[in-house]
Amino acid sequence: MENYLFWIAPAASFLALALAAFFYKQMKGESEGTPEMQKIAEHVRRGAMSYLKQQYKVVTLVFIGLALLFAIMAYGFNLQNHWVPVAFLTGGFFSGLSGYLGMKTATYASARTANAARTSLDKGLRIAFRSGAVMGLVVVGLGLFDISFWYLLLERCIPDNALNPTSKLCVITTTMLTFGMGASTQALFARVGGGIYTKAADVGADLVGKVEAGIPEDDPRNPATIADNVGDNVGDVAGMGADLYESYCGSILATAALGAAAFIGTGDTEMQFKAVIAPMLIAAIGIILSIIGIFAVRTRENATMKELLKALSTGTNLSSFFIIIGTFLILWLLGLDNWVNISLAVIVGLLVGIIIGQSTEYYTSQSYKPTRKLSESGKTGPATVIISGIGLGMISTTIPVIAVVAGIILSYWLASGFDFTNIGMGLYGIGIASVGMLSTLGITLATDAYGPIADNAGGNAEMSKLGEEVRRRTDALDSLGNTTAATGKGFAIGSAALTGLSLLASYIEEVRIGLERIGTAILELPNGIQIAIHEAGLDDFMIYYDVTLMNPKVLSGMFIGSMMSFLFCGLTMNAVGRAASRMVEEVRRQFREIKGILSGNAEPDYARCVQISTQGAQREMVFPSLLAIIAPIVTGLLFGVPGVIGLLIGGLSSGFVLAIFMANAGGAWDNAKKYVEEGNFGGKGSEVHRATVVGDTVGDPFKDTSGPSLNILVKLMSMVAIVMAGLTVAWSLF
Amino acid sequence: MENYLFWIAPAASFLALALAAFFYKQMKGESEGTPEMQKIAEHVRRGAMSYLKQQYKVVTLVFIGLALLFAIMAYGFNLQNHWVPVAFLTGGFFSGLSGYLGMKTATYASARTANAARTSLDKGLRIAFRSGAVMGLVVVGLGLFDISFWYLLLERCIPDNALNPTSKLCVITTTMLTFGMGASTQALFARVGGGIYTKAADVGADLVGKVEAGIPEDDPRNPATIADNVGDNVGDVAGMGADLYESYCGSILATAALGAAAFIGTGDTEMQFKAVIAPMLIAAIGIILSIIGIFAVRTRENATMKELLKALSTGTNLSSFFIIIGTFLILWLLGLDNWVNISLAVIVGLLVGIIIGQSTEYYTSQSYKPTRKLSESGKTGPATVIISGIGLGMISTTIPVIAVVAGIILSYWLASGFDFTNIGMGLYGIGIASVGMLSTLGITLATDAYGPIADNAGGNAEMSKLGEEVRRRTDALDSLGNTTAATGKGFAIGSAALTGLSLLASYIEEVRIGLERIGTAILELPNGIQIAIHEAGLDDFMIYYDVTLMNPKVLSGMFIGSMMSFLFCGLTMNAVGRAASRMVEEVRRQFREIKGILSGNAEPDYARCVQISTQGAQREMVFPSLLAIIAPIVTGLLFGVPGVIGLLIGGLSSGFVLAIFMANAGGAWDNAKKYVEEGNFGGKGSEVHRATVVGDTVGDPFKDTSGPSLNILVKLMSMVAIVMAGLTVAWSLF
Repeated sequence: MENYLFWIAPAASFLALALAAFFYKQMKGESEGTPEMQKIAEHVRRGAMSYLKQQYKVVTLVFIGLALLFAIMAYGFNLQNHWVPVAFLTGGFFSGLSGYLGMKTATYASARTANAARTSLDKGLRIAFRSGAVMGLVVVGLGLFDISFWYLLLERCIPDNALNPTSKLCVITTTMLTFGMGASTQALFARVGGGIYTKAADVGADLVGKVEAGIPEDDPRNPATIADNVGDNVGDVAGMGADLYESYCGSILATAALGAAAFIGTGDTEMQFKAVIAPMLIAAIGIILSIIGIFAVRTRENATMKELLKALSTGTNLSSFFIIIGTFLILWLLGLDNWVNISLAVIVGLLVGIIIGQSTEYYTSQSYKPTRKLSESGKTGPATVIISGIGLGMISTTIPVIAVVAGIILSYWLASGFDFTNIGMGLYGIGIASVGMLSTLGITLATDAYGPIADNAGGNAEMSKLGEEVRRRTDALDSLGNTTAATGKGFAIGSAALTGLSLLASYIEEVRIGLERIGTAILELPNGIQIAIHEAGLDDFMIYYDVTLMNPKVLSGMFIGSMMSFLFCGLTMNAVGRAASRMVEEVRRQFREIKGILSGNAEPDYARCVQISTQGAQREMVFPSLLAIIAPIVTGLLFGVPGVIGLLIGGLSSGFVLAIFMANAGGAWDNAKKYVEEGNFGGKGSEVHRATVVGDTVGDPFKDTSGPSLNILVKLMSMVAIVMAGLTVAWSLF
Repeated sequence: MENYLFWIAPAASFLALALAAFFYKQMKGESEGTPEMQKIAEHVRRGAMSYLKQQYKVVTLVFIGLALLFAIMAYGFNLQNHWVPVAFLTGGFFSGLSGYLGMKTATYASARTANAARTSLDKGLRIAFRSGAVMGLVVVGLGLFDISFWYLLLERCIPDNALNPTSKLCVITTTMLTFGMGASTQALFARVGGGIYTKAADVGADLVGKVEAGIPEDDPRNPATIADNVGDNVGDVAGMGADLYESYCGSILATAALGAAAFIGTGDTEMQFKAVIAPMLIAAIGIILSIIGIFAVRTRENATMKELLKALSTGTNLSSFFIIIGTFLILWLLGLDNWVNISLAVIVGLLVGIIIGQSTEYYTSQSYKPTRKLSESGKTGPATVIISGIGLGMISTTIPVIAVVAGIILSYWLASGFDFTNIGMGLYGIGIASVGMLSTLGITLATDAYGPIADNAGGNAEMSKLGEEVRRRTDALDSLGNTTAATGKGFAIGSAALTGLSLLASYIEEVRIGLERIGTAILELPNGIQIAIHEAGLDDFMIYYDVTLMNPKVLSGMFIGSMMSFLFCGLTMNAVGRAASRMVEEVRRQFREIKGILSGNAEPDYARCVQISTQGAQREMVFPSLLAIIAPIVTGLLFGVPGVIGLLIGGLSSGFVLAIFMANAGGAWDNAKKYVEEGNFGGKGSEVHRATVVGDTVGDPFKDTSGPSLNILVKLMSMVAIVMAGLTVAWSLF
């Protein structure tokens, strides 16, 4: 099967990677500022790299273990396609590479941003933003490159199926999902490990530095300050890069698998092929048009916050607009059946993403009432700040859920040709919507990765004692980053919900292939009808496995799935709590034992704090991450296919809502504190300020550790279920 | 259909009510102590009664509105059975009556308990416990009385169905569920209103009194102290009474409905009748044997905490043991098919309840590691206390979920005769397990209601300045109450999960009856098979309505259901936050404006604080409660039967886990503070203590407002769906 349009995908990926390399070189060409600035940047860079090295060591062991397991299943028992172990390893490798490259860029860019801010605000913004764009482009470039590569490879290596010609693309696309599992596994470790690292350092630095010693943020006298800046890089940059690489690939791969499944047994291999490559083409168009948007971002000196936001949103909106047009064009050229409706599903996805982003901004920005009221609740102390913040976060789940529900129904309805019984195409539509939502990732991730760079630039400026004016400029850049980060999280969560659904549907598809591989040729449905497996559709498998809501195995799976979300959050919250306690003790010890730190006469032992965060993260990240991998396997062995589906859907529905709650509560606490610091309700140093600082500290693991990891958890559990489907099926027949 | 065994149910209910009256009289015969004690008790009693009057006014309006709506649906459009509006009203009335009687007893008992504690610990325990038993017996007595009464009435009034003789009992049992909806509606208002009242007062009293002014709990100088004591009665007694009345009736009614549904179309009306009355008989046995346990509770002077706990658990264990034997006996006498397995399902339910109770104790009692570690986290301030408490609560969901899942699978498997395809009987088994779990309610509720009585006795002793020795005794009684309250909450949550599942299954049954009533005589399944509605079973309806997990309407419903749990919690949390803020301002105002309060020379304005809590609770309770009623209706109109099922299951799976999280986190925070107050980590007045007080304050709405209301929310949404099924079905055909 060939189609000249397919080659747009690899071409777009090369374009993205080339531009990333260009931006990187351009940034490296800038000056890193004074020797003091260089020294601090070097400190942070070295801490970050040494952490990443440590993390990749642990993760490599996990990958070797899992790859061995897959190899035994594939070569020993024929429970899996033979390409699975290799695909798994590449997914993990490239996800890690995305994080690594993004972080490398970020650690070089922050001092250069601070230095550029000495000249002008615009120059600072350009350097920070283009360095963020490196990460955005690396993620989408590597993602689409890998997908194209694997597609071309498997297309040539997987044999045709004489019984059912439409089966070949199903095998190809579900094998490619293994590659997604590798990416998810890497992403989960990166998010959890990085999240624990950054928040242990942040909470530790804040609790002793700001609250007890009363010194400002990023003050060089605070021993945990370098660890805090390292944390921004390993958590917010490397973690996010791996995370979004996984989201991006996951949504494209799941949609391709659904496209293949929708045509199973029809014999229409040509339309099936078109449905498989459509998500890749939409992604390719998205890359090309994101690049245009990236070049459109610029601002002027003395720009207000509004103008800065406008500079970024002009870029994003421009991209979105052109992507809509481009999608119609490419799907028309491709000649996909029902192409108008499918293109409309892309718009639905984009709109859902925008609505979630706006709602996130409303609930978490101090420009709006909810966060201002949260600040006000500080008048009656920290307890009411916590109560109100939790209330705010829980209420803020309403709009995103309604938006996603509307998106599910609309995209399903459009793609199914307005026929709700056309499950195959309907589910494909949901997948397409998730691809649409992530199609602007090249630019949205640039605005997202920009945040921690600006944050670190501010830290560098503070520590190297640059002037008031420079600090004001980096503060403006940093503040902008907080808002874009919140919006970015909204996109990540929304796309996770849609991708999660697509993966769930792909799971059933993989179960079909698992049965085919084992060789059970005939399905006998409970109503007595017999059907050949290679002709059976989604419906038949759902009836065969009794995937109805009254099956006690489905119900049990659902309870376990809901519990998994909470257990996972609880474990990561506690991990942060423990790691932060150790950091607090260390900082207190240094203040006590190293005389002259607070007067600025002695240098604190930064390295010891970096080490504590690193050890804490390494020790704590393994258990929750392995749990996510083990849960679907055990559930499958105990409760079979219905149990796994229950687990996935229970985990998805509660994990999605829990993730929004945690992200928004955390964001609102952060900004409620900022609002007080801007001089409201008594300003800095007041009782209200102290109360909101408690809220901010509680919010840190909410928004940067547990919340974002939940997205990955939900998808990783689905991916594991898909890869392990062969085992589950064999075991239940056995 | 007659069976002499049936009469055990009304007989047991009369026995319970008679004994309740006897205990009440006995308690009223005791002295209420000094004039000072009497005065304080009178204050609390008057505040509580005036609140309840206020609350019942608001609730009555809601009931009239809903009853009118049901009347229109029943008499105007024939969308419901004609008995529905009346059944709804009685359910609401008796649920309210249970709360009222329990609270009346409690407000008379607390001063008498304090006075008895002047004589001996045993005498204090006996009075408090027997007064708690009044509530336990009133709830089970009224519950079983209503169920028997309605059964006898409908048995005589609902006409036979010539086409399908097994249909009559289905109509009877689902009509009786309406009576459950009345109880749930009343319970939700009582829990939410009472919960907001008590926590606004508690948080307000603690924040200003303990934290700012540094005066002890229950100090008469604190203006909010009377409101706080009133709150214990309206929230913990009246709220809990209405709540458990609803749980008790809900589980029996849902199981009866499932028993009727399991035999639909078989023509075996005799076995169907036996399956319907079996849960009532198990409940009756439970009542009789709870009474034996109640008489077994006694202790000796200078009893340690362990001995006190043993006194209570001896009673409960004795009851449980005899109930197991009694169940085998009665089901054998009844001659129910598969009676051994059904009796075993009762044991499964009891065991699940015990495991959840034990796990709750482990995670929330300061005798164990988790809570002690939580206290220790106070060393690094309030933020880490909050982070660790949330982590602890989330992790604590694991054991209860696994226990419930094991209970679901086991009871289904047993009752289905080890045949998973026998859905009807399997689901009936889940219902039976929930009845088993609640069969000891007579005594477990006694130990539960005992808690607030002992708490108030302590308050009374403190305010009327009784001696050190008396205070020590009431403290011991109070502390015991905290532990039993935690266990009791475990039972309530566990039974809600199982009852929720039973109600879900009953919903499908009601849909069948709805279709029958409208007159669509033939179902056409998607695979082309036609089947007469009166012969169709659960399976057929699930296929007809496509209740599979890949239906986008089911998925949408699930997301909305998950979101509802969070939204509801968020709204109630915020309500507490707002009401508490008003209380804090008022207490501060009184300290400022009424000179001499703190020196004890002037009396604070207690009545104003009572008024603030009352107004706050009334204003805030209406919106979240109405939301619970509206959500299933709107979802049904938008997404039909599959959407409603998704909503219920999504709400159930995430609501259950969220409820455990909130209850346990709240309980652990409370006891972590107590552990510090016992002299650990610096004891009272230390920085660690201040930090744990913040945790305790945050935990208050978790464990006493949002958490327990969630149980009711889940069941109420199911009940509303059941009652509105006729409308949903008619609308989707229209």
